[in-house]
Amino acid sequence: MAEEAAVRAQAEAVRRLKQDKADPDEIAKEVAKLLEMKAQLGADEGKHKFVLKTPKGTRDYSPKQMAIRERVFNVIITCFKRHGAEVIDTPVFELKETLTGKYGEDSKLIYDLKDQGGELLSLRYDLTVPFARYLAMNKITNIKRYHIAKVYRRDNPAMTRGRYREFYQCDFDIAGQFDPMIPDAECLKIVHEILSDLQLGDFIIKVNDRRILDGMFAVCGVPDSKFRTICSSVDKLDKMPWEEVRSEMVGEKGLSPEAADHIGEYVQLHGGLDLIERLLQDPKLSQNKLAKEGLGDMKLLFEYLTLFGITGKISFDLSLARGLDYYTGVIFEAVLLQQENDHVEEPVSVGSVAGGGRYDGLVGMFDPKGRKVPCVGVSIGIERIFSILEQRVEASEEKIRTTETQVLVASAQKKLLEERLKLISELWDAGIKAEVLYKKNPKLLNQLQYCEDTGIPLVAIVGEQELKDGVIKLRVVATREEVNVRRESLVEEIRMRTSQ
Amino acid sequence: MAEEAAVRAQAEAVRRLKQDKADPDEIAKEVAKLLEMKAQLGADEGKHKFVLKTPKGTRDYSPKQMAIRERVFNVIITCFKRHGAEVIDTPVFELKETLTGKYGEDSKLIYDLKDQGGELLSLRYDLTVPFARYLAMNKITNIKRYHIAKVYRRDNPAMTRGRYREFYQCDFDIAGQFDPMIPDAECLKIVHEILSDLQLGDFIIKVNDRRILDGMFAVCGVPDSKFRTICSSVDKLDKMPWEEVRSEMVGEKGLSPEAADHIGEYVQLHGGLDLIERLLQDPKLSQNKLAKEGLGDMKLLFEYLTLFGITGKISFDLSLARGLDYYTGVIFEAVLLQQENDHVEEPVSVGSVAGGGRYDGLVGMFDPKGRKVPCVGVSIGIERIFSILEQRVEASEEKIRTTETQVLVASAQKKLLEERLKLISELWDAGIKAEVLYKKNPKLLNQLQYCEDTGIPLVAIVGEQELKDGVIKLRVVATREEVNVRRESLVEEIRMRTSQ
Repeated sequence: MAEEAAVRAQAEAVRRLKQDKADPDEIAKEVAKLLEMKAQLGADEGKHKFVLKTPKGTRDYSPKQMAIRERVFNVIITCFKRHGAEVIDTPVFELKETLTGKYGEDSKLIYDLKDQGGELLSLRYDLTVPFARYLAMNKITNIKRYHIAKVYRRDNPAMTRGRYREFYQCDFDIAGQFDPMIPDAECLKIVHEILSDLQLGDFIIKVNDRRILDGMFAVCGVPDSKFRTICSSVDKLDKMPWEEVRSEMVGEKGLSPEAADHIGEYVQLHGGLDLIERLLQDPKLSQNKLAKEGLGDMKLLFEYLTLFGITGKISFDLSLARGLDYYTGVIFEAVLLQQENDHVEEPVSVGSVAGGGRYDGLVGMFDPKGRKVPCVGVSIGIERIFSILEQRVEASEEKIRTTETQVLVASAQKKLLEERLKLISELWDAGIKAEVLYKKNPKLLNQLQYCEDTGIPLVAIVGEQELKDGVIKLRVVATREEVNVRRESLVEEIRMRTSQ
Repeated sequence: MAEEAAVRAQAEAVRRLKQDKADPDEIAKEVAKLLEMKAQLGADEGKHKFVLKTPKGTRDYSPKQMAIRERVFNVIITCFKRHGAEVIDTPVFELKETLTGKYGEDSKLIYDLKDQGGELLSLRYDLTVPFARYLAMNKITNIKRYHIAKVYRRDNPAMTRGRYREFYQCDFDIAGQFDPMIPDAECLKIVHEILSDLQLGDFIIKVNDRRILDGMFAVCGVPDSKFRTICSSVDKLDKMPWEEVRSEMVGEKGLSPEAADHIGEYVQLHGGLDLIERLLQDPKLSQNKLAKEGLGDMKLLFEYLTLFGITGKISFDLSLARGLDYYTGVIFEAVLLQQENDHVEEPVSVGSVAGGGRYDGLVGMFDPKGRKVPCVGVSIGIERIFSILEQRVEASEEKIRTTETQVLVASAQKKLLEERLKLISELWDAGIKAEVLYKKNPKLLNQLQYCEDTGIPLVAIVGEQELKDGVIKLRVVATREEVNVRRESLVEEIRMRTSQ
């Protein structure tokens, strides 16, 4: 109210200056002041008005988006089930302390709930920590499960590139003490199957091992205490050139230039079995226990991947580091490749669409006695996949149906609502997907238009003469063909014409 | 630390008393004090220990529970799709102000998020308010959609009866300006179909109309200002006898005893078309505009329900009130009936499993210009249904499979891991659901036991002789029958034997 009075006073002052034919510059100055005061007032008013939006970084899914989402989920779930996975679900929030100390620096991105009395709660940040909590709580030492659910991160959203504050994760994990690299190889096979089935274009799965990285850091002369922080610098190599990463290592993180250069030689290496063999002969790496273990397992992994026939898309890549602290062995990340132009020789990476690795220590963090349950798992980056497919659908102008309705029950004349309702009830009871317009006397043209708009393939038309004859007129929307079908055969006829 | 020192001092005091052979009573007293101090210390330590649990009122779903949940969802989604519904999704949280003023007294049960900078957010309390916000925000005036998602209420949980703080809602709603009672009748048909398909036992769907209730309150002499509060008393009639409800009306809510008694006469009425006709002739009700409108529409509704063939399970019940403020027309609630004992004559209601009604004003609360979009919808009370089905499964000892694996790839001899991996890869690539034990040399007995435990019907056994002969031994777990199948026919053979 005080602000409004101030605006009125300023307006009065401007009016008087004009009346007094004052210096135009002075008038302009006071008018500018008035406008700014008004804008300020307007902005304040705006704040108190009702804002019709979803929270920052979140979105609704429209029926069309849901149709795309269901297609993608269907491919992924079919794959997870093909590999014999069970499914679990956990609450959207956890006790705050369950998430504490699991995500390192990223903990600041966790959404906390308001303390309204009772327990302190936070929204889940991923599905892996709740999974580990679930295993420890239920003393499960052996499970293969998937979990598809939303997770929450107070990150800077980049929604056009599929980065949200609320987003889906699709996780598949194998927990249990098994012979080396067999479950790890299956995780990679799953990524290969899903990315192939989704037909997203060419892709490559980069593979590395935390033990190889740690061994490499050791032989390059990185002090133990700097392993994690240097690892997170290496992790930036997919977004930054080596020179920048190197200067971060030396400048910000105090690594010796010699050590950094030494790392630089290793992280440019990528290849297959040949590279593994070469590194197993590397005079320095082969002397390091961790690196030797990691390289041995990597060799075994490649043998299994050869049996699966998928090594063509796997690249052992020493620059792959992955951000999360809890990985202890194999790590991997799948990226889509895009042949942007003819004159670009190397395919361009358009970003990660799946990732995962082995985390043998996480469950032990929850077990009162610290008992470990080795785990390996993969997470499909579903939001980026949605974005790609949505853009593709937009570009292609492909018409996506958002319902599965097989037939619209219509009438050509008035006063046939009762007959329409009787017929549709028969169809529903027989399991036919059917709709009717919620009008007493809809025009036939409007009914046919509704089918065009929504992609309903058939129309069952009730008419007075047909009712007397015991038939229903069945119209095929695409061809405009019409046939009379005896009422008792209608269900069978619709089934036949809509089965694929 | 101070407490620990105090305990040590007390222990020393006890030791000295014993050494001095003090009065046994005094020793006992000091020992008791020591024990209490120790217990206190232990409890404090416990508080700081890690608590391995899910938040109050929430639960994990195990694979077995998920299998039941998927069966139920499958029935419900199939029904929603049969009726031509699209599907949408909304974020788990909304701007706090979106939920403000929609739930009356129950607003205190809303979960707020902590203010971490940025917008003030709350977890959704139901799916109806987000749906209304979605319609207004996207200016949608016409949609038939379902939405299945979790909602959150800081209520007192009663988990054995299926009441949680995090729980699923399955909502189907029809929005748009249509001819009266056609969408309303379809909602009731949907409830009837779902409860029949789920085979939960006998049920009844109670129906009433807010306008009939309001008209009834008016002719009974309830002041306008008391309509809502008296309505919420009537809503308790399914849990409390009339006498208690009456004394709440008169005592707590200050209604005249005459008005209460008058209401008492109406709310015991329930029936079908006959009752509607009788009330349309009721000298008082027929004079009330609202009641007359409501009764006229109720008659129309019953005509449509007769065409759908479901009036046998519908009861027009004047005691049905429903809690939520936003209903404006038809309201309904489905309850399961249970023939508890032979000597009980009336079937006993075991609680509501679905409910809904018409809310023509809610979307207008979000529209900047107050434009209304009439809506009617139904919500399936899925958690209570889960509870019932879970208990039924427990009681029946029915074995529920938690995976869909068709075949286990096994070996009878050692050193055949490579051959197993090669074969399973072929099966996966052909779309067969297959598993393999993650052991280099598993015992055949263990592999067969795994099939017994998890319900896998077939075992494909790799053996040295069979490999030479180009065949795989296929074993039917249930019958122990074994046949040799040529490797190139294995996929077809597995498909044939596991198709139903």
